[in-house]
Amino acid sequence: MTEDSAEYLQRKEFYNRMLTVYGRKPVLEVLQDNSLEIHKLHLADSNKPAAILDDMVKLAKKRGIEVCYHDKQALSRISKNSKQDQGVAADVIGKGFQSHQSFLSSNKKHYRILALDGVTNPQNVGMIIRSACASPINAIILPEKGCAKLDPLVIKASTGTLFRAPILRCKTLASCLKAFAESGADIIGLDANAPHTLGEEPLTGAKVFVLGNETEGLSSDVRAICNKHVSIPMLNNVESLNVAVTASLIAFQGAL
Amino acid sequence: MTEDSAEYLQRKEFYNRMLTVYGRKPVLEVLQDNSLEIHKLHLADSNKPAAILDDMVKLAKKRGIEVCYHDKQALSRISKNSKQDQGVAADVIGKGFQSHQSFLSSNKKHYRILALDGVTNPQNVGMIIRSACASPINAIILPEKGCAKLDPLVIKASTGTLFRAPILRCKTLASCLKAFAESGADIIGLDANAPHTLGEEPLTGAKVFVLGNETEGLSSDVRAICNKHVSIPMLNNVESLNVAVTASLIAFQGAL
Repeated sequence: MTEDSAEYLQRKEFYNRMLTVYGRKPVLEVLQDNSLEIHKLHLADSNKPAAILDDMVKLAKKRGIEVCYHDKQALSRISKNSKQDQGVAADVIGKGFQSHQSFLSSNKKHYRILALDGVTNPQNVGMIIRSACASPINAIILPEKGCAKLDPLVIKASTGTLFRAPILRCKTLASCLKAFAESGADIIGLDANAPHTLGEEPLTGAKVFVLGNETEGLSSDVRAICNKHVSIPMLNNVESLNVAVTASLIAFQGAL
Repeated sequence: MTEDSAEYLQRKEFYNRMLTVYGRKPVLEVLQDNSLEIHKLHLADSNKPAAILDDMVKLAKKRGIEVCYHDKQALSRISKNSKQDQGVAADVIGKGFQSHQSFLSSNKKHYRILALDGVTNPQNVGMIIRSACASPINAIILPEKGCAKLDPLVIKASTGTLFRAPILRCKTLASCLKAFAESGADIIGLDANAPHTLGEEPLTGAKVFVLGNETEGLSSDVRAICNKHVSIPMLNNVESLNVAVTASLIAFQGAL
């Protein structure tokens, strides 16, 4: 299987859509939610017997979900969080997850996307996903580096919308934004000091709105890729809005 | 001094504008912020000597703020939070604070106000104040009963905007909303199931938008006062938005 074979790309896209949830309560909750497609349930063979584990296995069998047993180290590699996995993980298929390459290959001319640059607070990331999922925005770019991990805290703050939100995952934001810029999209940084306002931006066209860290703002490498900057006009000398509020205002712009 | 004398009403309005902050770090921070008008610094005479207390007294004297010493019980009555006041309180004047009677006496024909009904999470209340302060909304109604107290957590979440936000405080929300209804304002409840959407509401006119509790929604007595209900259209079967996000979308409606 070579790196550009159809099978390889299909598998890569499959894994791009997969989110590994860990911890006993979060895993039980995803198993209980019949609207979610679950690939596998992973259990550490070192787990001591517990009613909640029996419930998980029962639910998995009832739903035809494969149950895999691993030694503790292998489970840690799957959960990527040995401290909090409690010997349990599940691979959930994010319905709206895709790679940015896949999104770009659809050649849309008009779209609006949110991109998060170093947003580290899981409450904020979860709230942004919840708002974006409810809004007409086309996608949210969530880089693996620099942002809060998509962990149980984010899932909770997203009120479970994470699994159906339109999410483009990537390693680093800068490389992903470059691909969007090369395809002709406007990369628009939110910046409280920008002279142009969000309202001056036409609603049409291909646009990626980039939101920076809660206190630091945009990182320098991302700032360099932005070809525009816009601000949200603020009264009473307020210096900034909460990043999830800013994201929501963009996501619902023109829809209210 | 009778209850309707000009002097009594003036004093009542003065106390309506006052917010008592407690705890050593929050009080030091308000004393350090020269943009804030501070009425009095209150200290318990049982406080053991501490550098931070010396700093407070120094700052108060420099700024000409009266320093009052009380026994521990009297200080508790001022802070209304003996567990967390740490023997320290300060009366800060909220620049934008007024009574709802005072707001209504200005006879504005067009205004937009947010009202909170049982919003108990201090993070959400603080975030709502921050967004509302930055937006063109005319005021936020914060009832004493049922909502998060305006405590250090709310101040922090508001990033200090609480002291300059346009806030109408009242005892119970229902009685305040009745006064607005009698003056001819529309009382508009936010309700995810309402067939009419926020966008269908004209931006002009006198309107109070009421936001309910994070999980319970509007309380029954407040719901009965609302003459309209509106929803924010949500895609992907999202059931609700975070209450601070909803408040921010209303506050910035028509301004972006």
